[in-house]
Amino acid sequence: MKFSIKQSVLVEQLTIAIKGVSTKNLIPILNCIKFSLTKDGLTLTSTDNEMVIITFINKDKIDSIEKTGEVVISGKYIYDMVKKLPNCIINIEEVADSKIFITTEKTEFSLNCNNVYDFPSLDMDYKEQPVVLKRKIFKDMINTTAFATSMQESRPTLTGINFILDKDKIEATATDSYRLSKKVINISGNHEYSNLIIPTRTVLELVKIINDEDKDIEIHIFTNKIVFKFDNIEFLTKLINGSFPDTSKLIPETFEIEAQVKYDDLYSAIDRASLLSSGDDKNTILFELKGDTVKISSNIPEIGMIEETFNTSNKSNKSISISFSSKFMTDALRAINSEEVLLKLNGDVKPIIITSTKNSDLTELIVPIRTY
Amino acid sequence: MKFSIKQSVLVEQLTIAIKGVSTKNLIPILNCIKFSLTKDGLTLTSTDNEMVIITFINKDKIDSIEKTGEVVISGKYIYDMVKKLPNCIINIEEVADSKIFITTEKTEFSLNCNNVYDFPSLDMDYKEQPVVLKRKIFKDMINTTAFATSMQESRPTLTGINFILDKDKIEATATDSYRLSKKVINISGNHEYSNLIIPTRTVLELVKIINDEDKDIEIHIFTNKIVFKFDNIEFLTKLINGSFPDTSKLIPETFEIEAQVKYDDLYSAIDRASLLSSGDDKNTILFELKGDTVKISSNIPEIGMIEETFNTSNKSNKSISISFSSKFMTDALRAINSEEVLLKLNGDVKPIIITSTKNSDLTELIVPIRTY
Repeated sequence: MKFSIKQSVLVEQLTIAIKGVSTKNLIPILNCIKFSLTKDGLTLTSTDNEMVIITFINKDKIDSIEKTGEVVISGKYIYDMVKKLPNCIINIEEVADSKIFITTEKTEFSLNCNNVYDFPSLDMDYKEQPVVLKRKIFKDMINTTAFATSMQESRPTLTGINFILDKDKIEATATDSYRLSKKVINISGNHEYSNLIIPTRTVLELVKIINDEDKDIEIHIFTNKIVFKFDNIEFLTKLINGSFPDTSKLIPETFEIEAQVKYDDLYSAIDRASLLSSGDDKNTILFELKGDTVKISSNIPEIGMIEETFNTSNKSNKSISISFSSKFMTDALRAINSEEVLLKLNGDVKPIIITSTKNSDLTELIVPIRTY
Repeated sequence: MKFSIKQSVLVEQLTIAIKGVSTKNLIPILNCIKFSLTKDGLTLTSTDNEMVIITFINKDKIDSIEKTGEVVISGKYIYDMVKKLPNCIINIEEVADSKIFITTEKTEFSLNCNNVYDFPSLDMDYKEQPVVLKRKIFKDMINTTAFATSMQESRPTLTGINFILDKDKIEATATDSYRLSKKVINISGNHEYSNLIIPTRTVLELVKIINDEDKDIEIHIFTNKIVFKFDNIEFLTKLINGSFPDTSKLIPETFEIEAQVKYDDLYSAIDRASLLSSGDDKNTILFELKGDTVKISSNIPEIGMIEETFNTSNKSNKSISISFSSKFMTDALRAINSEEVLLKLNGDVKPIIITSTKNSDLTELIVPIRTY
């Protein structure tokens, strides 16, 4: 393998490939990036055995291709090194003793290579009729649900986002069993039903490498993997085995109380009250609604207490007093991010449902905390 | 105590006072800020028993002073809370049961107070003829030396910066015994000789609260403490007891080799070579000078090697090969920050001296690493 390439071109693609490199140091080959140079261009591949990232640099962006070939090199070292080089032409050459030489005018750098045959291969596959949607919509769907994912490995299915594809819509749901976030989007076409769980960790890496251009992303769904395709990038992630809990019946259809409040009023009140919320990770705050007044309060007896009041824009003759985690509330509000939000309640032991007043495609559910 | 004040006015001064609050949780009173309200204005005091910060808000910046008094409240809670309030008028009132109430239109917040008499008092003192210098010069003196301070508590004198004041100059020196950074500045007046050690930790807090205005700072030196005065702020720090090693003879006056190099050439070569420098904290790189060529190299046998070459602008007929910590080299260069630097050497076991080619008020010394 021997070629010359502009530093900025290589670093741009290495920045993508490095995201697929394992962050655990257990299996050295998974810390590597595979360089495959053909007459058509350079392919960079990285994998941590859960996901695969392939990015391609077309020959017209490469200054010279003198000898094709394949090498497998430490992702961290090649990325850090190339990033630190000035934006000049870099020569990369494989030499005997499984080494590569990276040279510029002033720098000479050699890296030991790993065996190409040890690099795991996970096959990309493509459907004839993939799901196609705008990147912005896809990213938004992930970003507004991923935060509700469970961090606990003890229930693996909850560490992913559930995608239910049915005809012309996708329903994405994440839950850690104390809260839930569900986003519904419409897509074009008439797709076969499928119900799958995408690992949140890997799909968040995908979201990082999708740029904000107003273009499409292709989604190819298989039984045990899912492949995303956009620009010069292919991204594969394995799916999580098992069945996601049926969340369709968790969200009631009727509510005793519906209160419409200003986003800023609610968010800043909870944000301030969270300063004095007790419980290391629960951060309990008390939410009270009476007439058209909302009161949010919290206290730590040895330190002090805080009380926030503001109005809802609709009057209710029912009153309620219910406790929540302030963190779950602010997470949910950040996902909704609408000028006005609708709070829907059914008594003090039933979950609260939060949606935007404008559209109902995103639903946030939070289970109350019982206080005694 | 009862008064009203604009949120932005209070938060600006709390941001200063909070820096003096202890970050260790051992003695609760040291986590507090003392509010002292008189007819003239509000004084905020914080101390961690090593340093004291006093900041004053003049009465004309306070909306109303209804009742003077003193309270001692948790620094963290009052600061976090006031920061999160909107920029409106805040009412602060001491009520019975040693509590204060902080109220705005929508928020009601109460904090328990500590006993005013438990708050430690460290007396501020002032000399009739303090040292006066430009803030920028003072900050620069600290920032170009502090990094060379030792982190090891086993030699307390090396955890501070040595100030030698003599007539019309100050010599500031910091060293961890492997490297040294010394800055000399000229001051106006004719001051008495004094030799003291200021704790680096506290003086770095001071640097953070000095703004960049083109104004003076007053320095009042005593045997066991030093007081800084600027704007509405007074800052006291205790001095470190003991005598700082005499570093005046460490820097040779003549050198076998002097090489002038471009800052960018040297910095980027070391920066890249540091990627493959071995040794967990030593980060050894090899520096070689022959004729007008500098070669910087490093290697980790199991990973690879790197070699960087560039020219010095003066030819020497002596050659040298010497190893350094890449971290110490880049730290020293960042402090110098001049277009061209002068490297002065006396053989491969003697320290390297680095200065700017323009002025010699800052001297960096680095002890080589012996390699076998």
